[in-house]
Amino acid sequence: MELTFREAQAEDLEHLVGMLADDILGSQREDASSPLNPVYLSAFQAIQSDANNSLVLAENEGQVMGMLQLTYIPSLTLKGSWRCLVEGVRIHSAYRGLGCGEKLFEYAIDSAKRKGCAMIQLTSDKLRPDAIRFYEKLGFTASHQGMKMKL
Amino acid sequence: MELTFREAQAEDLEHLVGMLADDILGSQREDASSPLNPVYLSAFQAIQSDANNSLVLAENEGQVMGMLQLTYIPSLTLKGSWRCLVEGVRIHSAYRGLGCGEKLFEYAIDSAKRKGCAMIQLTSDKLRPDAIRFYEKLGFTASHQGMKMKL
Repeated sequence: MELTFREAQAEDLEHLVGMLADDILGSQREDASSPLNPVYLSAFQAIQSDANNSLVLAENEGQVMGMLQLTYIPSLTLKGSWRCLVEGVRIHSAYRGLGCGEKLFEYAIDSAKRKGCAMIQLTSDKLRPDAIRFYEKLGFTASHQGMKMKL
Repeated sequence: MELTFREAQAEDLEHLVGMLADDILGSQREDASSPLNPVYLSAFQAIQSDANNSLVLAENEGQVMGMLQLTYIPSLTLKGSWRCLVEGVRIHSAYRGLGCGEKLFEYAIDSAKRKGCAMIQLTSDKLRPDAIRFYEKLGFTASHQGMKMKL
């Protein structure tokens, strides 16, 4: 399997929303109806027009197998370092367990390094113990509580 | 105590870096030497020139008592919602326990709501149990692991 990586395009959106919704937590949160709910297009345009946001797709033979979003954040902390935040990670359910997630994260980590980030970080729902183990295997440390408040 | 809130300016930087360094974890990470290490000015300029980043100060009678950084993040998840990430929270050591942190967070939460965010989120080091209790009292839930990798 030879993965390639590219920025998401508007034409990918319906597939991506389907991937986000095809998940025990995502199915309660997303709207995978067709035609696509226009809120997703607005969100995509906001991501695409922000130089510090990148929606990365992993592809094999023209098939999107994985996705994640990178946000590059300038900050005063850690001696004025940039951080890279990872959100919206999903591997297509048909392609799990094939090492696609590892390769997508290798690409994400390389991207963060190329941007000069001192840290890459994410939060993982405590209801996803397998995901947390996956991130620990990659080298992430669960040193922090990930705290959320719905508004 | 009548707090006011404003965006940080370059003139605040030396004071802000002093606040970041005046902390059990920050003292190991920051460089509070004078004249100011120029990496902080570069970081500040990157924050200031990014419309989706805001370095907020809480002031009382011309004295900066607290700081935090807000990053507004467009995303596909949660039906194409914006999220607000909080980083670099610090209350000046001379002004802790006076309710300044609560008021600074009320302002941050209001700012996130005005921007239309569906979620406000942060990570808090597990070595800071008091901070975690503070965030829980504000209404944050430690539903996630906060996972980091130094690059």
